[in-house]
Amino acid sequence: MNFNIIRNYIGKILVLVGLLMFVPLVTALIYRESILNIIAYIIPMVSLFAIGGFLGYFKPAKNKYMGAREGFVIVSVSWLLMALFGCLPLLISDYVDDFFTAFFEMTSGFTTTGASALTGAQLENMLTNGGHSFLMWRSFSHWIGGMGILVFILAFIMESNEGSSISVLRAESPGPQVGKIVSKMKLSSRIMYLIYIGLTILELGALNFCHIWDPNMTFFDSLIMTFGTAGTGGFSLTTASCAIYAPCSQYVIASFMLIFGVNFSIYFWLIARNFKEILKNEELRWYIFIVIISVLVITLQIYRLYSSFEEGFRHAFFQVASIISTTGYSTTDYWSGSQGAWPALSLGFIIFLMLCGACAGSTAGGLKQSRVLILGKYIKTRIKLMISPRKVEIIRLDGKPIDKEVVDSTIAFFILYIVVIGASALLISIWNPAMSQADSNPITMFTASLSCISNIGPGLGAVGPAGGFSDFSWFSKLVLSLEMIAGRLELYPILIFFTRATWKKST
Amino acid sequence: MNFNIIRNYIGKILVLVGLLMFVPLVTALIYRESILNIIAYIIPMVSLFAIGGFLGYFKPAKNKYMGAREGFVIVSVSWLLMALFGCLPLLISDYVDDFFTAFFEMTSGFTTTGASALTGAQLENMLTNGGHSFLMWRSFSHWIGGMGILVFILAFIMESNEGSSISVLRAESPGPQVGKIVSKMKLSSRIMYLIYIGLTILELGALNFCHIWDPNMTFFDSLIMTFGTAGTGGFSLTTASCAIYAPCSQYVIASFMLIFGVNFSIYFWLIARNFKEILKNEELRWYIFIVIISVLVITLQIYRLYSSFEEGFRHAFFQVASIISTTGYSTTDYWSGSQGAWPALSLGFIIFLMLCGACAGSTAGGLKQSRVLILGKYIKTRIKLMISPRKVEIIRLDGKPIDKEVVDSTIAFFILYIVVIGASALLISIWNPAMSQADSNPITMFTASLSCISNIGPGLGAVGPAGGFSDFSWFSKLVLSLEMIAGRLELYPILIFFTRATWKKST
Repeated sequence: MNFNIIRNYIGKILVLVGLLMFVPLVTALIYRESILNIIAYIIPMVSLFAIGGFLGYFKPAKNKYMGAREGFVIVSVSWLLMALFGCLPLLISDYVDDFFTAFFEMTSGFTTTGASALTGAQLENMLTNGGHSFLMWRSFSHWIGGMGILVFILAFIMESNEGSSISVLRAESPGPQVGKIVSKMKLSSRIMYLIYIGLTILELGALNFCHIWDPNMTFFDSLIMTFGTAGTGGFSLTTASCAIYAPCSQYVIASFMLIFGVNFSIYFWLIARNFKEILKNEELRWYIFIVIISVLVITLQIYRLYSSFEEGFRHAFFQVASIISTTGYSTTDYWSGSQGAWPALSLGFIIFLMLCGACAGSTAGGLKQSRVLILGKYIKTRIKLMISPRKVEIIRLDGKPIDKEVVDSTIAFFILYIVVIGASALLISIWNPAMSQADSNPITMFTASLSCISNIGPGLGAVGPAGGFSDFSWFSKLVLSLEMIAGRLELYPILIFFTRATWKKST
Repeated sequence: MNFNIIRNYIGKILVLVGLLMFVPLVTALIYRESILNIIAYIIPMVSLFAIGGFLGYFKPAKNKYMGAREGFVIVSVSWLLMALFGCLPLLISDYVDDFFTAFFEMTSGFTTTGASALTGAQLENMLTNGGHSFLMWRSFSHWIGGMGILVFILAFIMESNEGSSISVLRAESPGPQVGKIVSKMKLSSRIMYLIYIGLTILELGALNFCHIWDPNMTFFDSLIMTFGTAGTGGFSLTTASCAIYAPCSQYVIASFMLIFGVNFSIYFWLIARNFKEILKNEELRWYIFIVIISVLVITLQIYRLYSSFEEGFRHAFFQVASIISTTGYSTTDYWSGSQGAWPALSLGFIIFLMLCGACAGSTAGGLKQSRVLILGKYIKTRIKLMISPRKVEIIRLDGKPIDKEVVDSTIAFFILYIVVIGASALLISIWNPAMSQADSNPITMFTASLSCISNIGPGLGAVGPAGGFSDFSWFSKLVLSLEMIAGRLELYPILIFFTRATWKKST
């Protein structure tokens, strides 16, 4: 293990996290927040610069070798540290008084989960008692976490060779394969980030345009919503999530949730007018197909529950977009709302979408549609294999045969995903003294676990759209925080981080 | 496809099913049931003998070739026909007036699921209005289905070559590998059946011994309970299941549920005094380990809910034995009983056990513990592979390396299992007009689907220990019936039966 290069990378990341805190700091200054709030940012920033500077710039590594192990360790350590330092402002300012709640909240922020452990009262306290900067910080963390902080460093800061970049990128980027749109990794990452920034500005403009019809969509609201949508995070300003906005804003947000769930390469090809590549993309077609089917089925099942067909359609469209993109905003409480719980089939679709997620190479979480496609094709070949054992079936995606190794690792990923969901659901069931007996049931535990690993936010039961994670014990919050990071980094980095063999001297 | 051999086999099976109906017929005569009941058996028996005799003995097949496809078709067709003819007595006698309910009930019987679509009133009607023979028939179907009807034919009736036996056996026998305890398949099957009969007699004796302390355990009850336990089925005489019996009977039934969940080869080795083989058996150790852990955790969580520690322990022990062996009897209503629902962790364990099932080569359903073991080892090697990609890790079971093909098919089986559970849960959510809105929720649909594929019986929610499947629509009952058969035959036969490629002329 090349500890020197790990130390160097982590140092640079810490400095960057410190720099990012200027965003909430400036927000605090604009809103003329208390001196305690300012200090709450200054202390972690100074520490980050000091520690990060020491680690990152003192004694540069001569040996530039970076393998898979180093990549995994760098991403898992840096994501843990991001959440750890990121939650300090909340704790110092006293808006949150419990470490595990703050840690859960910022993990949820950076991993773009958007599950909140804050109570409605705590959120309101921030909004009305001079805590805008903290709301900004947690939503901004979505935006950072969406594309990945290491991808940012690779794209704009680090000078590094192709070999090492790919190890880090592979560990942080979602999807079964790391695609390069241009031959150089660094340039690819830069283009991706620029597309990300462009789409973010587009949504910000659209939401401010909506302000004409929607008085609730202030500039601050539009920023929070845009960060939450772009990173497919889901933190909002109240427990009512997006129900407080007018239909036009809801349609805009829903559309952008879907847009940020698409593989960013598609936008590159769109700009490059390479429509052939786009039409060839099976994942995109499948993603659109799933969205249409889900919206159709749910609309037909629920429109009678609402005052008009349009309202039913809007809720179906918004919720489907929110869940498949793993954002987690909501416009209606489909579990315990006044209109009654949605029918079982609609909720079944929601759970299915929670598992799938959107496209690889987007900011979304979940299994990713390309993996779902590969799994489907794999099952088909296995059944055919049982009928004629001698025939060799090749799995194709986008018309090209896929590597056997990609199929194997997709299968392994799916199995691991299911096992981690189950194991975490059992772990968080163990001890939650503050949770009522009625809330503490398998549907709460299972969907909480699924929601965290897929980086969504809401689940069903006590963690439904109107509920939250505040009643979980510190132990459950810790488990769920680790699960969120594991989900964001696609399992292996965190699992490998906790495996003894990683730390052995040999190999 | 060799249709001649398929026709011959199916003919023999139909005749055998007709012969098996002598058991309820004799019961009807002993209990002096109405003439309509007698006719209800005579009609299907005569039809079975006529159709079966025609198919099985007319124009014997010259070409004895039987491949995997033929094996799959034979088992899936014969299991469908068994349920189809098996449900005729219920319909003719008018105790059940709806075809899909009767079909569900007998599928549940033969597949050893034990999920009942009959209401409590219908069951009581059978017990008090001269319908003992029908209760006997559905419980006896557990006993037949437990070991498998084709295994019976192979063991005692058919003269056949090794090659063709293994194709049928592979399609009907549970577990990742078909183990032969002696070199000849036919002899192996015979020994297995004799062990099965021996254990059945043992339990019958033990339960009748319990009658000294348990007035409710009549001879008829002991027969019903023994058939239900031996086949790991779970049909009982009332909706209260085993709660009506005294603790001694409950302990006996629980112990035998666990015993019938063990790989029958273990008993062969026990008789052969080959203790080395038994000690080497990893699956057995793992099975015992899971049972002990589950009983321990659940006892500690629930004993305060009951009047004494013994009662808490007994309920934990009984329920764990019942679920892991996929029998489905219950002594307490852990979902909606008067003591309150069990805590989330205990219910989480129940769901986990529902998925796992007991050992391969037993009468139990579920994934089977050996598959769980292989999956666990597979995950371990995959994580190690990520750390050192060049190392080749070999998966071992019982100290011997397992074939790569066995690992691959175990993985495929697990994925298919999860997909079928999810897809069926969605299908049965579509339309159930008779089900109340509160009952129709994801936990009901998911556990109903899981319970049927694992051949257990009860789930949670509306299909909890005190609930049942009577409120499902005919469509849902049909889906669940097919799922039960798919689960009993370990998916492939039924999936392949519905695949177009199976019926193509070529290959």
